[in-house]
Amino acid sequence: MNQTIDTILAHRSIRRFTAEPIQADVLSTLFDCAIAASSSSFIQCVSIIRVVDADKRAQIAHLAGDQPYVASAAEFVVFCVDFHRHLQIHPEAQLGFTEQTLIGAVDAALMAQNCLLAAESLGLGGVYIGGIRNNPAEVSALLDMPKHVMPVFGLCLGYPDQNPESKPRLPQSLVIHQDSYQQELDRHQLAEYDEKVRQYYQSRTGGNKDMSWSEQITATLTKEARPFMKDFLTSKGFSTK
Amino acid sequence: MNQTIDTILAHRSIRRFTAEPIQADVLSTLFDCAIAASSSSFIQCVSIIRVVDADKRAQIAHLAGDQPYVASAAEFVVFCVDFHRHLQIHPEAQLGFTEQTLIGAVDAALMAQNCLLAAESLGLGGVYIGGIRNNPAEVSALLDMPKHVMPVFGLCLGYPDQNPESKPRLPQSLVIHQDSYQQELDRHQLAEYDEKVRQYYQSRTGGNKDMSWSEQITATLTKEARPFMKDFLTSKGFSTK
Repeated sequence: MNQTIDTILAHRSIRRFTAEPIQADVLSTLFDCAIAASSSSFIQCVSIIRVVDADKRAQIAHLAGDQPYVASAAEFVVFCVDFHRHLQIHPEAQLGFTEQTLIGAVDAALMAQNCLLAAESLGLGGVYIGGIRNNPAEVSALLDMPKHVMPVFGLCLGYPDQNPESKPRLPQSLVIHQDSYQQELDRHQLAEYDEKVRQYYQSRTGGNKDMSWSEQITATLTKEARPFMKDFLTSKGFSTK
Repeated sequence: MNQTIDTILAHRSIRRFTAEPIQADVLSTLFDCAIAASSSSFIQCVSIIRVVDADKRAQIAHLAGDQPYVASAAEFVVFCVDFHRHLQIHPEAQLGFTEQTLIGAVDAALMAQNCLLAAESLGLGGVYIGGIRNNPAEVSALLDMPKHVMPVFGLCLGYPDQNPESKPRLPQSLVIHQDSYQQELDRHQLAEYDEKVRQYYQSRTGGNKDMSWSEQITATLTKEARPFMKDFLTSKGFSTK
């Protein structure tokens, strides 16, 4: 339809990169794009930490669950919710509200998606690294984050050295509701989608992975989801009230 | 640089729209774009509720703090974190983790930003409506959201009937850190930025609004930030552990 929509629809995560660096002016444009995103109540509570130091990269790659592309990508940045900046401007700021955590997570993601799409529009690729939340306290310490700053996710960026298929997403019929949340799941649509995901994994793994989406999320949601996150947030002064 | 980057950098919120509707095929493309975004661990825990019903629109416009464009925009959609879908597939799913709230807020925002940028690339405009979190329980009830579904923000979309300036954002020097979080705020950069914001408001209001960014966030953070949000999340089965 146009370049923006084509870029959006062509998205797939890239986890293998060439050695080609991202030029400084290009990186600067990507950061400008990040910063141009909407900000809830103009509060601008997001910081981005660009990690250049090879040793820190290697440590984060490990802390994120051994994801080597965190170390090998041309660029790796961490999106943080940041109210420390505000506290320096207004030492009596009322912080710790759960609402502020939500604002921060949402605004960080709006910025990151601008950054990733701008990169993809230039032929770069990337992948989000939620895995930094495996060890959020260690990542925070490594990057010297004070109280009222917390890492939300990382983003690897670089020139792609692979060309994976796009992963099939849930169809609109299961995601879009009209006027009321439709509580009854359309099992027929789900079955069709499950089969599509199964075929995607089969084709991508040469037949080795045989799993539907329902099976995958069942496995995921049978386990605890980073049960330490609530305490971590509290320790950083987030969601205490 | 290219259409995608030009679109991203030209962003400004649109709050006044013409009466022109968004054609069904265009809206469908915008939803496809939303769904194409990255999803943390492929968990796909976001639903979008399109609100067509005029009475519901009017009620939400009021609940969001009397924002009339919620009622008058060609389209208004609500982005929700949704684990009810997963619960129907896996009734024993482990839910309530704070981590899942974070995943949901992040993934909702990634999807929404795709949707808004795709719209902007087609000459449409929009504005996020965080104001639905003024009365999240009422909005949830109005749209029949069950437990494990919560509204995060809304998005108005339509053809612009205004042409506002872009609002100046914090400069890279205050947002981008390298290898370590820089705890000491650059007061000189901040003063420059504060002046830029003051000039923006002066020019936009014909001299009526005289406020820097520091003054604005000081006013915002002197007040409580939706102090009911923690209890609301708990009531919907989110962030209980």
